[in-house]
Amino acid sequence: MQTVTMPTIMRESVLLEPDCVRILDRRVFPFEKTFAVCTNVEDVAVAIEQMVTQSGGPFYAASAGMVLAAREAASLATAEDRLDFMQKAGARLVATRATNNHIANVVALLLRDCEQLLLDGDQFLPSFEARVQEVWEVRRETARKLGENGGHIIEDGDAILTHCWAESTIVETAAAALRQGKKFSFLCSETRPYLQGARLTAHSLAEMGIEVTVITDNMGAYAIDRGKVNRLMTAADRVSMSGHVINKVGTLQLAIAANHFAIPYFAMVQAPDKSAKTAMQVPMEDRDPQESLYCLGQRTASPLAKGWYPAFDVTPPHLVSGVITSRGVFSSFALAGYFKEDEI
Amino acid sequence: MQTVTMPTIMRESVLLEPDCVRILDRRVFPFEKTFAVCTNVEDVAVAIEQMVTQSGGPFYAASAGMVLAAREAASLATAEDRLDFMQKAGARLVATRATNNHIANVVALLLRDCEQLLLDGDQFLPSFEARVQEVWEVRRETARKLGENGGHIIEDGDAILTHCWAESTIVETAAAALRQGKKFSFLCSETRPYLQGARLTAHSLAEMGIEVTVITDNMGAYAIDRGKVNRLMTAADRVSMSGHVINKVGTLQLAIAANHFAIPYFAMVQAPDKSAKTAMQVPMEDRDPQESLYCLGQRTASPLAKGWYPAFDVTPPHLVSGVITSRGVFSSFALAGYFKEDEI
Repeated sequence: MQTVTMPTIMRESVLLEPDCVRILDRRVFPFEKTFAVCTNVEDVAVAIEQMVTQSGGPFYAASAGMVLAAREAASLATAEDRLDFMQKAGARLVATRATNNHIANVVALLLRDCEQLLLDGDQFLPSFEARVQEVWEVRRETARKLGENGGHIIEDGDAILTHCWAESTIVETAAAALRQGKKFSFLCSETRPYLQGARLTAHSLAEMGIEVTVITDNMGAYAIDRGKVNRLMTAADRVSMSGHVINKVGTLQLAIAANHFAIPYFAMVQAPDKSAKTAMQVPMEDRDPQESLYCLGQRTASPLAKGWYPAFDVTPPHLVSGVITSRGVFSSFALAGYFKEDEI
Repeated sequence: MQTVTMPTIMRESVLLEPDCVRILDRRVFPFEKTFAVCTNVEDVAVAIEQMVTQSGGPFYAASAGMVLAAREAASLATAEDRLDFMQKAGARLVATRATNNHIANVVALLLRDCEQLLLDGDQFLPSFEARVQEVWEVRRETARKLGENGGHIIEDGDAILTHCWAESTIVETAAAALRQGKKFSFLCSETRPYLQGARLTAHSLAEMGIEVTVITDNMGAYAIDRGKVNRLMTAADRVSMSGHVINKVGTLQLAIAANHFAIPYFAMVQAPDKSAKTAMQVPMEDRDPQESLYCLGQRTASPLAKGWYPAFDVTPPHLVSGVITSRGVFSSFALAGYFKEDEI
């Protein structure tokens, strides 16, 4: 079996240190390798809001933020005070970004644990820290399972178009396919305005030894038309139970092009979102319109123009060939199967 | 009738001076208003190759380059020498960019004239310069006619998505619609890697008093999905007689999205290309792959990634709702009608 090198961004995304949390600044990586050093929950929340980390990063950043909160809360007198402190910390973290539900989910999970752990004042902090490590290990294991399922979708000789930065889903999928001895290449759309595709995806897949070509966001359809790629794979920030894929803006455009030229589109998500029956239940994040008018800090548009920056779009289920999850590859019209484990 | 302000880029695109040609540097406009100063044909050819000007610009730049050549040729002893000099100058200009056939067409036209004008050595230069002015006036008049036809396609209240910089076709179309008293707005896709949409189109339309919003190239389909635009209009570098639209890469992706969501797509070109029966007869320009990895001089992609830069793509006729020309709006399947003037 081939040994697979895991990319920097997966190894050093969020580092929990004795006195702080260090978050790899994905806005400038790989041009610079710098970290946001956060000593309290507010620092972490601001880092998430300012996009220091994104995609799968906020899950780790938010839970590491909860550890920072627990370190402060541990010195408080009563279980009630500690719980109150933790709840406020959680609320602050959840308020950072609306569409990414990993933050809300992990905070809710850890707050439920808090209610029990807080009964024992002395043991609270070590128990909480151990619990976070456990949650992280479960998440990594879930990502590996998704990767195994995704790896089977990749065929030897594939050229795969991807958009934005699909984090652990793409890394584990590529890692599994490499372990299976397959050769394949990636075409990454750069993903304006923050260039996650050109920077994070391209760099991470290349670090894994995969051939990577970067295109601008207007070239996807033509790349398919010219036969440069034979499948489209992206992560999903959320997939509703109706099979609607909510992901970085641009996903819809590529999915429409893939459908037009009859190549399959696979969305990757650890699990569909039980709380969202349809896409209507997912709050969509419209970010500052100005962000679309700059690139790496430089103004790109006429001073006379306004901007618009819908961070996500919605791809309907009929454009999705399959949803790759930690429990298998599901039809976008049959996602309920994910929650019936005995059927898998 | 409303008075329409013509944008800077149309007024100062290519300036023929007594001792040089000044070409507005569209790579940095509107952030900087600087000119490439060309004193001979080679300077002009290099400016075109290096994208100092593009779209309709090379037509004027190349013919102005021929004037510079004529000024040199005028001092040569024989008609044969002068013609030889002019032919070499023309060949150099035609060799600059393959897909833009305005260069080849205007150079061929002016070289045909040369053969007659050169018989009279004294009158050659003034006659040639007058001839170029005449060719320019015909072109401007043709653009105005196209604009009248395009203006009728725009309806009061329209929100129009456009891509790249459609030069005189979009300016004259917008000008005609404004003169007709219509209110409408534009959404411009930024058009990476050179941002012609964000810079040139957005700035020029805004200078005309039109509301302009700039989006990144991955947002077009979602903008249509959300109902932010109700039609797509772009220029075409060429339209083959088969109705295939060759235009800046990204046009195909937007045309597919427009078709998917059932909004019309209009391509604008002064005339279909009689010499190209199908798209196969149009040489497609693949530019330096590195160009896709930079934005305004800054590296945008991982140092480990390769690039790809097909400058143009091909949109098939079934995705085109109409071709707006100087002689009317034609079905993409009935372009032969353009050349049967008595039918119009």
